[in-house]
Amino acid sequence: MAEKKLVEQITSMDVDFAQWYTDVVRKAELIDYTSVKGCMVIKPAGYAIWELIQKQLDAMFKETGVENVYLPMFIPESLLQKEKDHVEGFAPEVAWVTHGGLQPLAERLCVRPTSETLFCDFYKNDIQSYRDLPRVYNQWCSVVRWEKETRPFLRSREFLWQEGHTAHATAEEAEERTIQMLNIYAKFCEEVLAMPVIKGRKTDKEKFAGAEATYTIEALMHDGKALQSGTSHNFGDGFAKAFGIQFTDKDNKLKYVHQTSWGMTTRLIGAIIMVHGDNSGLVLPPKVAPVQVTIIPIQQKKEGVLEKAYELKDRLSNFRVKVDDSDKSPGWKFSEAEMRGIPVRVEIGPKDIEAGKCVLVRRDTREKIEVSLDELETKVEELLNTIQKEMLERAREHRDSHTYVATNMQELEEILNTKPGFVKAMWCGDQACEDLIKEKFSATSRCMPFEQETLSDVCVCCGKPAKKMVYWGRAY
Amino acid sequence: MAEKKLVEQITSMDVDFAQWYTDVVRKAELIDYTSVKGCMVIKPAGYAIWELIQKQLDAMFKETGVENVYLPMFIPESLLQKEKDHVEGFAPEVAWVTHGGLQPLAERLCVRPTSETLFCDFYKNDIQSYRDLPRVYNQWCSVVRWEKETRPFLRSREFLWQEGHTAHATAEEAEERTIQMLNIYAKFCEEVLAMPVIKGRKTDKEKFAGAEATYTIEALMHDGKALQSGTSHNFGDGFAKAFGIQFTDKDNKLKYVHQTSWGMTTRLIGAIIMVHGDNSGLVLPPKVAPVQVTIIPIQQKKEGVLEKAYELKDRLSNFRVKVDDSDKSPGWKFSEAEMRGIPVRVEIGPKDIEAGKCVLVRRDTREKIEVSLDELETKVEELLNTIQKEMLERAREHRDSHTYVATNMQELEEILNTKPGFVKAMWCGDQACEDLIKEKFSATSRCMPFEQETLSDVCVCCGKPAKKMVYWGRAY
Repeated sequence: MAEKKLVEQITSMDVDFAQWYTDVVRKAELIDYTSVKGCMVIKPAGYAIWELIQKQLDAMFKETGVENVYLPMFIPESLLQKEKDHVEGFAPEVAWVTHGGLQPLAERLCVRPTSETLFCDFYKNDIQSYRDLPRVYNQWCSVVRWEKETRPFLRSREFLWQEGHTAHATAEEAEERTIQMLNIYAKFCEEVLAMPVIKGRKTDKEKFAGAEATYTIEALMHDGKALQSGTSHNFGDGFAKAFGIQFTDKDNKLKYVHQTSWGMTTRLIGAIIMVHGDNSGLVLPPKVAPVQVTIIPIQQKKEGVLEKAYELKDRLSNFRVKVDDSDKSPGWKFSEAEMRGIPVRVEIGPKDIEAGKCVLVRRDTREKIEVSLDELETKVEELLNTIQKEMLERAREHRDSHTYVATNMQELEEILNTKPGFVKAMWCGDQACEDLIKEKFSATSRCMPFEQETLSDVCVCCGKPAKKMVYWGRAY
Repeated sequence: MAEKKLVEQITSMDVDFAQWYTDVVRKAELIDYTSVKGCMVIKPAGYAIWELIQKQLDAMFKETGVENVYLPMFIPESLLQKEKDHVEGFAPEVAWVTHGGLQPLAERLCVRPTSETLFCDFYKNDIQSYRDLPRVYNQWCSVVRWEKETRPFLRSREFLWQEGHTAHATAEEAEERTIQMLNIYAKFCEEVLAMPVIKGRKTDKEKFAGAEATYTIEALMHDGKALQSGTSHNFGDGFAKAFGIQFTDKDNKLKYVHQTSWGMTTRLIGAIIMVHGDNSGLVLPPKVAPVQVTIIPIQQKKEGVLEKAYELKDRLSNFRVKVDDSDKSPGWKFSEAEMRGIPVRVEIGPKDIEAGKCVLVRRDTREKIEVSLDELETKVEELLNTIQKEMLERAREHRDSHTYVATNMQELEEILNTKPGFVKAMWCGDQACEDLIKEKFSATSRCMPFEQETLSDVCVCCGKPAKKMVYWGRAY
């Protein structure tokens, strides 16, 4: 049966999740590999998802006063070195430009792995007075990190992202913006990507190079592994002191600014795949589905069928809709639409037309719903809303039913080895315990969640008094 | 008078056009310089123009079936070298990455100056059958060319652009797409940027490295210099043969694809400045003005004035509108709004409110129009449409009145030295004549326009029989 071929070509997620992931990104035509090791082509089906992410996230940013800018992709070596922790964190994984045209450069330039140093260099002159504050700038661009192991969307040498960089008059205002952006990220993941997240703070071991505090949203993938999905950093005045970013305040005194940065990346596309996908391929939340509705004519050569399909398409023009009028069999078209994760499929054939109805099929549950053609627009709209809502609910149920509690190292080990998911456990605050857990179980502290609980009085590792509840997990 | 300061800070365009340009890009806060020589920061006021360009141009692309993708920013040296003419054209001006992290790379990578080679490498595997054609892909990204002399927007070492790369089954279809995209560029420049252009073909001397034919749109700046504003290239099957991009056609034969590429860049922002700007600063066409209407309250501390200003803002929410409620004087606000090129200014004070009216001021002509508050929305909409239309008309008149005819070298020299503008002249088709004109007068052939005229029978340079009418000019 030719109809089954597409699905048969992908590995079952229960057999080999990593291979399933790789198969889906290829068969759903999201990416292609390239001659540049560790870099990928984002194909139309993948890039269209990114465009929908950009559009909706950018609108949320702008509602809070964010302005977009563009800074150079190159950082002179001397500039990268100005903040000690930052350069230590990034220098081992940057790409270096040493020649421009036929000449060697007087100073090496790195291709930006992130742009804190460039924004600081810019703000140093751009900010003079309290009237210039706050600066709430963002840029959409690509960055480069010379990773050894790469995987499409999740970890690649070049990836697309947005990076916000702000400067404020006070520490309080900087902290407020850091949290505000984390909340926007969480809201975006839940409402647009149908992906629930845990909001919290990173431990000192896991925080961003040069940050005072890093906040994170952590999502749980279908295989029980965690994915850091967005981070927001408060730098205090550390970078400002390293770069000399001062302003004259209302009291006429010269003060250092307080800074933040925050970013989300094309990694989110990997998250969508691993949270919602199934053994037939991609399952896209309607809000980021480049095609929300595909109309598949049955017996399309019969008189009136294709015409009807186009008529329905016109009626559904409020949605992102396509007619699959190719000469493939309906079964093959169903299979392709499933692989691509299109939320709703409309089947329309001669008998349906005669009966004044059509069949809607949900990608997420495969439920078939017969609807009268008169109420097509309303039903499709309702169904897309229902799918968006129920995808979030199912992801939340999966996350919650894969979140466990450990009170000692034996429990922690057993859970990590037998029940993939998040493990909540108390921690004394000592990095030695964090290191030991990582060394023994290859699990990392994902975050100290904002919603703290007291699971026990003592650290899961050393038994000393506990200070924080931490989410632990194996992570991408 | 503090009010005049902003304007006094910019050089008159009649005194020093180059300095006027530099002053405007700085004082209108479009860009800032950086520690990276030849690279700039595009600030919010500049980037917002680019976002409006992107949005409208991208919509025009998508109407013709263009799909967006993203390819890596790095090109392995061996890949760049596959097409002989192409590498010769670009190798002298690329930036080379030689180290990734702490290790030297086995093969140098250049930062893309343009992505023909990457698209070819991708299409080689992506295209198998006539069913895979045409491929009409585009990407929005930044590229790097290691220029010696740089100027904001016009020529910088890194710039933002879009690059379309297509593959077709036949030579005819490729030629059709090349011309189709040039027509879209011309339409965009006229209808959105209010900038008339000459459409034509480049001579072999001026064509793109590796192209069979390059088509161009050429605009005339206020100082009489030409600006190449967009190009569209037909590669025939040259790249396909160099990279082995073959497909099985309907007749079951293996054939090479025919390819095109086309691009426009942030240089367009430079064009907007130099076509429309005046001695008070920027003049933005309404369709790319980040702020279309600025409302400036007069005596804003008087009761009810600010409230009224906000009320008008709400009523004008169909437009991009702002209230300038800062504590600066109205005169200073006028001057700032002019520097930033905001198309319409609304003045509203206590007397206006009492009389139920306000004053609209056009940025382009400075005309003041008293309108009843009742008809504000309609009048603003009409005015924005009128401004957009008349800016194009004025630019066309300027272009036409600065286009001259030369029939011999004496005339050509005299015009080029005394009347900055386009010079139309006949050409025999011999590159020696083109070289001589460039050497003697620093003027280049801008294009062989689609709309040919017969000005004389002989070449302006050598007197041999003429083959083509050419637009000549000094160019950015």
